[in-house]
Amino acid sequence: MIVGVVTGNLWATKKSAALLGQAFLTVRAGEKSLVCADCVGAGEGDTVLVATGGAARVAAGREIPVDAAIVGIVDTES
Amino acid sequence: MIVGVVTGNLWATKKSAALLGQAFLTVRAGEKSLVCADCVGAGEGDTVLVATGGAARVAAGREIPVDAAIVGIVDTES
Amino acid sequence: MIVGVVTGNLWATKKSAALLGQAFLTVRAGEKSLVCADCVGAGEGDTVLVATGGAARVAAGREIPVDAAIVGIVDTES
Amino acid sequence: MIVGVVTGNLWATKKSAALLGQAFLTVRAGEKSLVCADCVGAGEGDTVLVATGGAARVAAGREIPVDAAIVGIVDTES
Amino acid sequence: MIVGVVTGNLWATKKSAALLGQAFLTVRAGEKSLVCADCVGAGEGDTVLVATGGAARVAAGREIPVDAAIVGIVDTES
Repeated sequence: MIVGVVTGNLWATKKSAALLGQAFLTVRAGEKSLVCADCVGAGEGDTVLVATGGAARVAAGREIPVDAAIVGIVDTES
Repeated sequence: MIVGVVTGNLWATKKSAALLGQAFLTVRAGEKSLVCADCVGAGEGDTVLVATGGAARVAAGREIPVDAAIVGIVDTES
Repeated sequence: MIVGVVTGNLWATKKSAALLGQAFLTVRAGEKSLVCADCVGAGEGDTVLVATGGAARVAAGREIPVDAAIVGIVDTES
Repeated sequence: MIVGVVTGNLWATKKSAALLGQAFLTVRAGEKSLVCADCVGAGEGDTVLVATGGAARVAAGREIPVDAAIVGIVDTES
Repeated sequence: MIVGVVTGNLWATKKSAALLGQAFLTVRAGEKSLVCADCVGAGEGDTVLVATGGAARVAAGREIPVDAAIVGIVDTES
């Protein structure tokens, strides 16, 4: 998984039917920015743990077309 | 997922049988360009949300040999 | 998917049993070179569409240990 | 798989329910840092073998939303 | 798949139970070095074909936590 910071939201009215109601957040991780399905109720400025690939669908709990999901809000990294 | 802009179409007459009838669009995302199965009816110039890996097959709704799919047309990113 | 150009063949006598009879082609895509299972009868110099990951096994139509496959021969990109 | 060194722990109180009780370690591999589910009882300073993607869920032995797991503690590399 | 050269072995006494008895080889492919499950009996100095992701588990023939496997020993590349 990677650690990043939530920088905003993304809205898409026209999308795959399976994504209706799914919240998307933009996460910056180092030089890269990616859009994640939010599975924990994260908000802008939160430091989050992101899982990618099939793990995102495990996090979503259903077969939706996502390849990145926020799976935790980071308290501390030592 | 990543956000990109549709830059054009790709045609391939000779292809895997499972891809017959599948529209392909070229999407530029930062420095990278990738070919995506279009699952939402996107067009050139649209800013789109792209899901990669197994998520592309979830988006297609069937087991076709694609590893990237357009799953939404982006309204706004904040 | 990515677009590349077939640059040659690869032969491996000693290989996983499941790969017997499978043709492999080397494809150059930008700076990167990768070896692909050929699923459409491509040849040297062809511009091809390559699918990676699980999509390669979908293209092969069976569970063989490949992570990249040629799934189309590109006519035009606009 | 990649080889890296455990550099610390990561704590996330708010996370996907399936991740309750799962230990996370931060691993540095070359220039990259990633967060791994610990499946072997590794500790800070250990040189470890990390498997990514679906392999991380195989290592965990259950369908949890992780994409990287420590699957071994490296004795020697020759 | 990618082509690389076997540069050595990796030993890990403490590892996921499913990896007991599995040989690991270090492979250099261009600038990158990765650890692969050996599925064909390769040795140091061999030029090999490496499959990554789920393909590595297909090569292993069982669900073990590996994400890269040597699936062939390269005779010639043209």
